[in-house]
This record gives sequence, structure tokens and C-alpha cells, in this order.
Amino acid sequence: MFLKRQQRLAHLIQEKHFDALALNAGPSLTYFTGLHFHLMERPVVLLFMPGNEPVLILPELERAKLDQVTYPLKSFVYPENPAQWPNVFSQASQSIELTGKNIGVEPQQLRLLEYNYLTSAAEKGSFSDASGLITSLRAVKDSSEVQYMKKAVQIAQKALKDALKQARIGMAEQELANELVIQLLKHGSEPHLPFSPIVSAGPNGANPHAQPSKRKLEVGDLLIVDWGASYNGYASDLTRTFGVGKVDEKYQHIHHIVHQANAAGREAARPGAACEDIDKAARTVIEDAGYGPFFCHRTGHGIGMECHEEPYIRGDNQQILQAGMTFTVEPGIYLPGENGVRIEDDVLIVKDGVESLSDFPREMHVIEEI
Amino acid sequence: MFLKRQQRLAHLIQEKHFDALALNAGPSLTYFTGLHFHLMERPVVLLFMPGNEPVLILPELERAKLDQVTYPLKSFVYPENPAQWPNVFSQASQSIELTGKNIGVEPQQLRLLEYNYLTSAAEKGSFSDASGLITSLRAVKDSSEVQYMKKAVQIAQKALKDALKQARIGMAEQELANELVIQLLKHGSEPHLPFSPIVSAGPNGANPHAQPSKRKLEVGDLLIVDWGASYNGYASDLTRTFGVGKVDEKYQHIHHIVHQANAAGREAARPGAACEDIDKAARTVIEDAGYGPFFCHRTGHGIGMECHEEPYIRGDNQQILQAGMTFTVEPGIYLPGENGVRIEDDVLIVKDGVESLSDFPREMHVIEEI
Repeated sequence: MFLKRQQRLAHLIQEKHFDALALNAGPSLTYFTGLHFHLMERPVVLLFMPGNEPVLILPELERAKLDQVTYPLKSFVYPENPAQWPNVFSQASQSIELTGKNIGVEPQQLRLLEYNYLTSAAEKGSFSDASGLITSLRAVKDSSEVQYMKKAVQIAQKALKDALKQARIGMAEQELANELVIQLLKHGSEPHLPFSPIVSAGPNGANPHAQPSKRKLEVGDLLIVDWGASYNGYASDLTRTFGVGKVDEKYQHIHHIVHQANAAGREAARPGAACEDIDKAARTVIEDAGYGPFFCHRTGHGIGMECHEEPYIRGDNQQILQAGMTFTVEPGIYLPGENGVRIEDDVLIVKDGVESLSDFPREMHVIEEI
Repeated sequence: MFLKRQQRLAHLIQEKHFDALALNAGPSLTYFTGLHFHLMERPVVLLFMPGNEPVLILPELERAKLDQVTYPLKSFVYPENPAQWPNVFSQASQSIELTGKNIGVEPQQLRLLEYNYLTSAAEKGSFSDASGLITSLRAVKDSSEVQYMKKAVQIAQKALKDALKQARIGMAEQELANELVIQLLKHGSEPHLPFSPIVSAGPNGANPHAQPSKRKLEVGDLLIVDWGASYNGYASDLTRTFGVGKVDEKYQHIHHIVHQANAAGREAARPGAACEDIDKAARTVIEDAGYGPFFCHRTGHGIGMECHEEPYIRGDNQQILQAGMTFTVEPGIYLPGENGVRIEDDVLIVKDGVESLSDFPREMHVIEEI
């Protein structure tokens, strides 16, 4: 599988007139090699040049990870002392004659740390953005990737169902968030979640990126839960909004609007549609209801090994959707100082339309007083 | 508190002849501002120039986080469309006249993404490594930071104690890792753990950075558990090694050696000692026992907001320890294809010596057949 991905990558590198690619620890390196490294103070870099064995620069104490490699790979390991690292980068670079070459990188992943080692090692090398060619491969999921994502969605849905059994008026956002994480793990999520769940109620919900606080759930709150699981390195990312006890009609109404916007966004998704069409379909529902200014973010983002990746579902993105692409549809309405609503599903573009990977009820479930 | 940290930072920036500092989303930005942002596709950058209000560039949908700010801060928000971002970076840069200035950055944090926006916005600016001045502040913890770290250690210790009640022969590494994460959360860790626990037994333990696998605990295994909790943004990072049923004398012996090396490392720690002294003290015990080549990593690393930060406890690091510094002491012996041992504590340099924040029993506890 990795060899096949590397062959596709080699083809694209040549087509886009790069000589080589340099990837640091992160999802793309894992996608092409199957190897997992944390982003830390010890740099890990893959140098990939068509026609050559891939070259991996890594710390000595990570060497055992290479035992699982089943394809040709040349490795250069460095010891603990950073004074030795430039030398090892140079040797690796010389082994494929990187000097003066046109090297593609991922600006969103590559740190100055690795970049500085690379520019010193590959004299007169020129570095430019190769994100596009990498994401064009990663954005279209194969059947095993889709299976992992479906499983990540199922784990998340089961976990929320069980966590909600514990939800009660007077419970702190953080308590519910912790319970949800516990349920995610019990249902089989990998410990490294795609993100820490957002549990935000009342005015906190009006901040789309709130962190769970000590604030307790109060009657009349809308309660946003934005959560996801990780399975075999693939993420799910879902949101549902609940009522706490009796909720004002105004807030029931914005929930209804967002529910409709979510459906409109999903319905607009198909092969050949543009990302902007999905955004427009969802946004129009909210604008027509008079809440346009309170939907302050894009309608969604691609999802896979990263929780946010291409394609981005924005009103200015003309990118065309293809079968195999997976992304979120997550319209929202945020009323500062009052409440917020967001409803988010993960969808897969299929040959003749779209499939929602998630089916947790979207209607406003109410958490009642016990 | 944040204003005080900013004043110290301003002082150091001038002392080290920088004009300004540019920090992206990450622990240093949080340390100086109290604001948390995830590292994602939308860049967040703090421009800090002594004599000016700090300048924060951030996405529109993160604006609500600024409500908590109690010190002067100028913000520049950008909308969802990336085509607008260079403009916003330019305005922010112009507001403090960044053109041609000497700007300090953190190569280990700053991505090409932010770097490219910055180099375009600050014409003729020169960027250089300011990690040293930042870490010199962050490495010395104040009393509230120490309290958070102690709490993170206590949570971790209680969690392992409870997780061990579930440990049994025949249990998969992954199962035990999941149970441990659940216990970490139950005991009050923040959901975003400093790292996913390592649970590795038998030959897997011979890889210092193994990921928990489906391999089941077998009689005769050594079992390494490397785990930590997060409290108020501060990490703990501990390791203990257990026996599974009856363990060969050879492996009991290497456990004993590592236990002694851990004690020797901790005992060598005091204000005025160098990092290399701690490494040497621990390493000598292992070398003298004939296992030097099997201790393939440094003796420890600083810990605080990041799980790995300065000071690094390496044999080539002459950095002098000061009261308030916190780091791990974690010698190990790894026998490829057989077993591994590591024993790791978190310690704090105090005025007259060292205090171990962790006190979980270091002797080889044996997991018995039920």
C-alpha cells in the first residue's frame, strides 16, 4: 500500500516539476511510509526523490520503528547530541544529491527547525510549496481509509450516547467533556483524540472554539457538544446541540434553522459540485432566516488523518469535489452573550452523490431535570 | 501575571538586541498571554515589541477568546478567505513598524506557514533564533506553576494505581493503555494529555518510543508504563517498569540497575550542578554494570507546559541548573528482542537540593496471575 502511494507521489512530483520532496514528522510522512513520529525537539525528515530509495533522517532511539518497514528505505540516524545533527542531514542529502535541487515542502507542517537543517544540507536547493500535490492524493480516500473513518464516526456516536446518560442540569461543562472522553476510549477510540471535545453551554456556546469550563448547565441553555474519535489514525468530527430543560422559542428557532442549513449543505454535495456550492447552500438558509451575520465561519473542512485538511468548504473555494473526498458540514449560529448552535456531520462523496457517515439524531434533544 | 511575564520578556529582548519577537500558536504564546490557540491551518501570531502594546493576529472566529484579556493588547482579525490574510499581516506589522527590524522567532515552533506571512509583511526584516531567551524565562517555574505540576504528578500516580487494579496476564498493551487514560481523566487530568501513554511489554519494551500494540502481556515480560497527566496546561511524565508473573533473574537485575541509576541521577541534582552531571551520574551506574551500550538516550528533559522542553539532561549539556527548574530523570536499559526497563521521575530543583515530585514505588511490582 505504501509503495503504491509512493509510486503515485513520484509520478506527481515529476508532473509538477519538483525534483524531490522533504516531509517532517506529521500525517503526510505517515501516509507515505506508515511510520508514526511525534513532532518534537528531535527532527524527523523524509527525503523523497523519484528514482531513489526514500531517505529517512531520524533519532537513534526511534530506529526500532524501522523494523516494520517492508519497502526499500535508506535511513540516517543521529545521536542525542544536536551538534552531530547537521552532519547527518548532510550525509542524507548527499546520498541523493540534493544540492541545487527544487525541493517541495509543506509550509503548514515544516518548522524552521527542519527547514534550517535542510537549507544547510542541500546547498543551493530551492524550497517551494508542494502542499497541493500531496493533498490531491490524500484528499481522495481509498476504501480502507473510508472504513477507518466510518469506524471513527461510530465510536464517536456510541460514546456520545453513553455520555448523555450522565448529563444533567448543574453538571459542569468540563465534567461532561471528561465523561465523553472516557466513553470515547471505552468504545475503542485511540487515546490520541483528534481534538479535545468542546462542551459549551449558554453564552459559552456563542464562541465557536470555546474550551469546556467549570460553568454548570443551566435551564434554558443551548448545549453544544463538538467531539470526535480516532481510529487507525483517522478522525471523526461531529457536533450536536442540545437543550437544557425548557429552552426559549428563539433558541429553538435558531436550532431549527441550523438543522435545515446542515441538511441543505449535505444535499448540495456530489461529485462535480464545488466547495463553494456546499457553503452557499448551507449559508443561504441561515441568511434567508436573517441570521447571516451570526454564522461567522466556513461551512466545513476536509477530514481524514487530520481533523482539518483539504477540501475546505468555503464560499471562495472553487475546488471541485470528487468521489472519495470526505469533509464536514457544520453550519452554526452564534448570538454573543446568549447561546450558540452548531450541527456537524462527516460526509463522503460517492459516485452518484453523497453519503453521511454520521447519523446521530440532529433534532434538538432536551436534557431534562432529574 | 501575564503583564509581569511580558515585562521580563521586554527586558530580555532589549538585552539580547532583538527589536521584537514573533510567536505562533503554542506554549510560549500561551505563557506570555494566557491565550490558548491550536496549531492549525489558520495562523495565529503574536508580535511583541518592547514599548508597544503586544499585537495579536488571529482568525475572526477566535475573537471571543480576547474577552478574557486584562492587559493592553492590539488585535488584528482576518476572515475565512486566505486571500485576505497577507493584508491583515501587513497591517499588523505596520502598526508597530516591523519593517527592517531584527525579529526573534522559535524555530521549533514556527512553521513556514507563519514565517512566509511574516517575511512578506515585515519587509527587510531579519529573523533569528530567540528560543534561548524565551526558554530562560520558561525553564524557571514560579510557585503556581510548581503547584500545577505537582497536581499533574498526583493525578498521574493515582491513575496508574487504579489502572493497575485492572492489569492482568493476557491483557493487550492497548487495553491497559486505554484503561490508564480513562483513570487519568477520572482523576482530573485535562482531556488533552501531554502524550498518549506508552504501554510496552517484552520485546516491545526494547523500543523506547513504542506505541501500545495488540500484544498480550505474557508471563516473564517486563512491562514499561510511561504516562502523564495534564493540569492547568502543565504536564507530568513518569515511567515505571513492572514484572509480569515470574521474571528471569537477568531482567530483575537490569531493573535493579536502572532503579539505582534513577536514584543516582536524582541525587546528583542541585542548584549549580550542570545537566551533564545528572546524565553522568545515572549513566555511570549503567555503564559500570556493563549495560552502557543499551542505554541509548539522554537521561532526561525539562518539563512544564511542554512535555519536552529545556533543560535537556544530556552528557554534552553544560547548562547550569537553577532553583525552579523541573525535569525528568529517566535512565533505561533496552535489550533488543528481549525486554526493556525505564524508571522516570519528575524533579524540581529547590534552593538547597532537589525534590522529587513523584514518589510512586520504584521497586519492581509484579503483576500476578489471577
